[in-house]
Amino acid sequence: MIAERLVALRAQMKTQNVDAFIIPSTDPHQSEYVSGHWKLREYFSGFTGSAGTLVITQDIAALWTDSRYFLQFEDECANTEVQLCKQTIPHAPEHVKWLCDLLPEGTTIGVNYFQFSKSQIDLINTHAKAKHIQVKNQPDFADAVWTNRPSLPNETIDTHPLEFSGETTASKLKKVKHTISTQKANYYLFSALDEIAWLFNIRSRDVDFTPLVTAYALVGIDKTLLFCKKERLSSTAIEAFSKLNVEIIDYDKMVSEMERVASESVIITDPSSLNYATYNATKATFIYQKSLVKKLKAIKNETEIEGAINCMHKDGVALTKFFIWLENELEKREISEYEIGRKLNSFRAQQEYYTGESFAAIVGYKGNGAIIHYTAAKEGSAMVKNEGILLIDSGAQYRNGTTDITRTIWLGGTPSKTIKTAYTSVLKGYIQLETQQFPQGTTGTQLDTLARMHMWNSGLNYPHGTGHGIGSFGMVHEPAQGFATSGTTERGTTPHLPNQFTTIEPGCYVTNEFGIRTENVVVSKAIKTTPFGTFLGFTPITLCYIDTQLVSEELLTSTEKTWLNNYNEMVFNKLKPQLNDNEQKWLANKCKSI
Amino acid sequence: MIAERLVALRAQMKTQNVDAFIIPSTDPHQSEYVSGHWKLREYFSGFTGSAGTLVITQDIAALWTDSRYFLQFEDECANTEVQLCKQTIPHAPEHVKWLCDLLPEGTTIGVNYFQFSKSQIDLINTHAKAKHIQVKNQPDFADAVWTNRPSLPNETIDTHPLEFSGETTASKLKKVKHTISTQKANYYLFSALDEIAWLFNIRSRDVDFTPLVTAYALVGIDKTLLFCKKERLSSTAIEAFSKLNVEIIDYDKMVSEMERVASESVIITDPSSLNYATYNATKATFIYQKSLVKKLKAIKNETEIEGAINCMHKDGVALTKFFIWLENELEKREISEYEIGRKLNSFRAQQEYYTGESFAAIVGYKGNGAIIHYTAAKEGSAMVKNEGILLIDSGAQYRNGTTDITRTIWLGGTPSKTIKTAYTSVLKGYIQLETQQFPQGTTGTQLDTLARMHMWNSGLNYPHGTGHGIGSFGMVHEPAQGFATSGTTERGTTPHLPNQFTTIEPGCYVTNEFGIRTENVVVSKAIKTTPFGTFLGFTPITLCYIDTQLVSEELLTSTEKTWLNNYNEMVFNKLKPQLNDNEQKWLANKCKSI
Repeated sequence: MIAERLVALRAQMKTQNVDAFIIPSTDPHQSEYVSGHWKLREYFSGFTGSAGTLVITQDIAALWTDSRYFLQFEDECANTEVQLCKQTIPHAPEHVKWLCDLLPEGTTIGVNYFQFSKSQIDLINTHAKAKHIQVKNQPDFADAVWTNRPSLPNETIDTHPLEFSGETTASKLKKVKHTISTQKANYYLFSALDEIAWLFNIRSRDVDFTPLVTAYALVGIDKTLLFCKKERLSSTAIEAFSKLNVEIIDYDKMVSEMERVASESVIITDPSSLNYATYNATKATFIYQKSLVKKLKAIKNETEIEGAINCMHKDGVALTKFFIWLENELEKREISEYEIGRKLNSFRAQQEYYTGESFAAIVGYKGNGAIIHYTAAKEGSAMVKNEGILLIDSGAQYRNGTTDITRTIWLGGTPSKTIKTAYTSVLKGYIQLETQQFPQGTTGTQLDTLARMHMWNSGLNYPHGTGHGIGSFGMVHEPAQGFATSGTTERGTTPHLPNQFTTIEPGCYVTNEFGIRTENVVVSKAIKTTPFGTFLGFTPITLCYIDTQLVSEELLTSTEKTWLNNYNEMVFNKLKPQLNDNEQKWLANKCKSI
Repeated sequence: MIAERLVALRAQMKTQNVDAFIIPSTDPHQSEYVSGHWKLREYFSGFTGSAGTLVITQDIAALWTDSRYFLQFEDECANTEVQLCKQTIPHAPEHVKWLCDLLPEGTTIGVNYFQFSKSQIDLINTHAKAKHIQVKNQPDFADAVWTNRPSLPNETIDTHPLEFSGETTASKLKKVKHTISTQKANYYLFSALDEIAWLFNIRSRDVDFTPLVTAYALVGIDKTLLFCKKERLSSTAIEAFSKLNVEIIDYDKMVSEMERVASESVIITDPSSLNYATYNATKATFIYQKSLVKKLKAIKNETEIEGAINCMHKDGVALTKFFIWLENELEKREISEYEIGRKLNSFRAQQEYYTGESFAAIVGYKGNGAIIHYTAAKEGSAMVKNEGILLIDSGAQYRNGTTDITRTIWLGGTPSKTIKTAYTSVLKGYIQLETQQFPQGTTGTQLDTLARMHMWNSGLNYPHGTGHGIGSFGMVHEPAQGFATSGTTERGTTPHLPNQFTTIEPGCYVTNEFGIRTENVVVSKAIKTTPFGTFLGFTPITLCYIDTQLVSEELLTSTEKTWLNNYNEMVFNKLKPQLNDNEQKWLANKCKSI
């Protein structure tokens, strides 16, 4: 199937006089997860990971991705000609120099300007020019090849009401307009879908697992233009916008409207989400800044925090009922990883305000747990028995919040010392980071070490960051803060501030043997102010017992043991009211002190 | 005095048609510490700190420096018109935008191209152009004003023999030439004085406290040019160079020789030490890279490691004798901080291969210890009594190594709980970082957190990095590795590798009350290789007892207490052979277990 698509694409390359195509994983909004219409890289390679760039020439099909996805690539692209190119640094555009080194002088690279940021096109041009290679905008290549390409999303756009958002669109727009004024600019342009959803308090379901709306927004002091399909707006949304002087303009008119912006205008925008087609369309001057909305949105208000706490409660109830079901069912039969994922979802779906999963649940039995972004296929996923280790990373979208949790449990038999040491080291890392106090403004790279220090002393490590921001009925990976080893990533360099949601999720993976990860969402809070500054701390809001069967007690300090017992006790006490007697008894046993 | 100099400088500005001068702290080699000839910033401001930039207009004299130096500035510039501008980020060129905002359009900024790197001049030009401000090279302004300006260094240049360097110049040059070949370049240009001293195994005393040689080097495949004063070379050096096909060319001929390099030539160089005058002189193409010599030099060979261990031993003997003298003498009289510093030096001077101090010793009594880079003046420094707290940060140059150590001791009376908590937190931080194992390649920002985590939990912190590289009879602050909170500094971003020397020196400072710092030099070693990679660890090589009087035992874990007792026991056992009976008895008491 991939072979046929590549034949068609290469024929199209000849027609369009192009020697190579660079096909990234993004859409015109530089999204991490995209709607079906933009799944070009997946269509031409079969690779479904959230990050990776496909480079096609007449002879080579190369997929560049990072270490999280190496195993997944081997699995998904096994029977294709697509070859894996390992990024040294995640998300780094290492394919650009590689491609320009590969191509002869005088050749042509085709790209779709909508799928690239300005800085990405600049980089491609720099390398290409040095080699006398031409870079051409070829936005139509996919349509010509991809029969049955999904159209752009078309579902209803709803408002996200004040009871969930905690702040009106008017109040949010006022902050943006204040920034436009103080910087003597004319407009603030937003291209990132999560920023637009937050700013206008709108939600739809344009992207798998994520309640986003395909749109751009050009906020002016007097008038605001929102580019989306007008017929998609609910009547509530139309009414709300008419009051706010927000004019709805068709999504396809973005470029032509940008061409109409007066050349003496000044537009503030975040270059990381601005696509090159939009940039190219206007003669106005851009001021590039890290998005104001990204910063505002990362700080959760009281309503959003209450919503998240409520969602974690619902998630905890669903997970408890699910784990009881799983334990009972495994005594009777083997169950596929796929079925387990679906069943977990069905428990969540019974909760109030549930709208869907927040990402494709990862249910990884034994060695499959070591595939960091594993998805069990409907057909042929591993059969889980009542023995060994199982990793489940899952989450949901509720209208009042977004969840993301990983638990690793022991299903039966005698765990090896190796597995217990790994599990306990991961737990120690989680506790170390979660209980640390730190100066306001400490970055993700500084904090990341805390989750790894015990593992390092045991000769262990894990090849991914330790955590990411999370939205409020928004993206499960929400920028900008997080925890990462690399000081060049946004998660590594962004300062931690009060009232942010971040996951803490250290792990340990041994290929073909096991995967272990323990993940909670925490909220940051100011704890104290001393002559040395304001110090923050984290409070976990995820509510689900941590399995104590794999804990090597002798590796825990008394403080760590107390933390574990207190956490499980809190989980039990908070979830108890929603559980029946048998469920309570079951959970009490899981939560009993060690 | 400063007032008179500024009057003269401002008159000169009018003569040269310049509206502002930017006067950095560096020399033509972008050195941190410079020879007397280049102490322009100190001459015109009175400020002696190792980092800081002076900006002079007809109305304003502004000194930009970072938090390490705020207290020192207040002290040294108190009675001048020079005002302090606080850098948000150390070494960041924040003065450039500030100056260009300040100056009217059409004005002129004067600089000496020799004192600026290419990137610095580029930055000044960018800001200046936007404001239609001209940037002019005015290399002669200082000579016209500064009567009795010291001439360039003129002492003998000696070879650094193989018994201390552990590697011949031929072997080092071979590595450089290999890089020139593999990159198809013609030359490798070195401007950093410490790199040239290492590469050619030469030493002199051009810079205070540092055995460097004022020189440039242009290494070619066939021939190498070393730019320095020929008459300074010892006969051994002349003989060595003639065998290696190293041609000595006068230092002043650098620009004219660069002008003669063929325009089709390719020169590899590190832009961070390349001055703009040199850059500007040639039509050849530069390849910019982090210096190969910087990387090679940071990895110490066995001879250098043995040399350093020997120096630490000598330092330990000198420090022990000094502390005994101090304790006895303080029972009889008060002693000035200045005298204490000189006395300490006199003990070191009795050691083999001693050539001088490696920096101006910091002897800070009580509140003076809170001035991070304090230097006690000959006249009027504080009188130390046999009570309270004393911080001593000092080091020496020996022909076989360089030392740097800080100890904070309690002289008598009852320490407050605050001071004991601070001291113990600093100690915990030191131990945490020193005993950590970590993957090869972990950066300074990742590791820095380990020294702060306990302090943060107690609401404490310190406004400087946690450590720096250190040379081998070289610079006491040697790039590139170190420990720093900031992920944008070289010390923060450089990966740690085996066989490097780095200091670990957490601290705690309360203005006007006390300063505490505990500093050892450690050497990195590969400890183990597991399926998760190669893990490194640190071994302390500094040998001097850590005062246990200020330790709050209840704040130490049993592991930390064991570490402290083991360290002091090791110090005692290693130093004992060089001490007489009374000295042994004294040290045994200081090193006894808690």
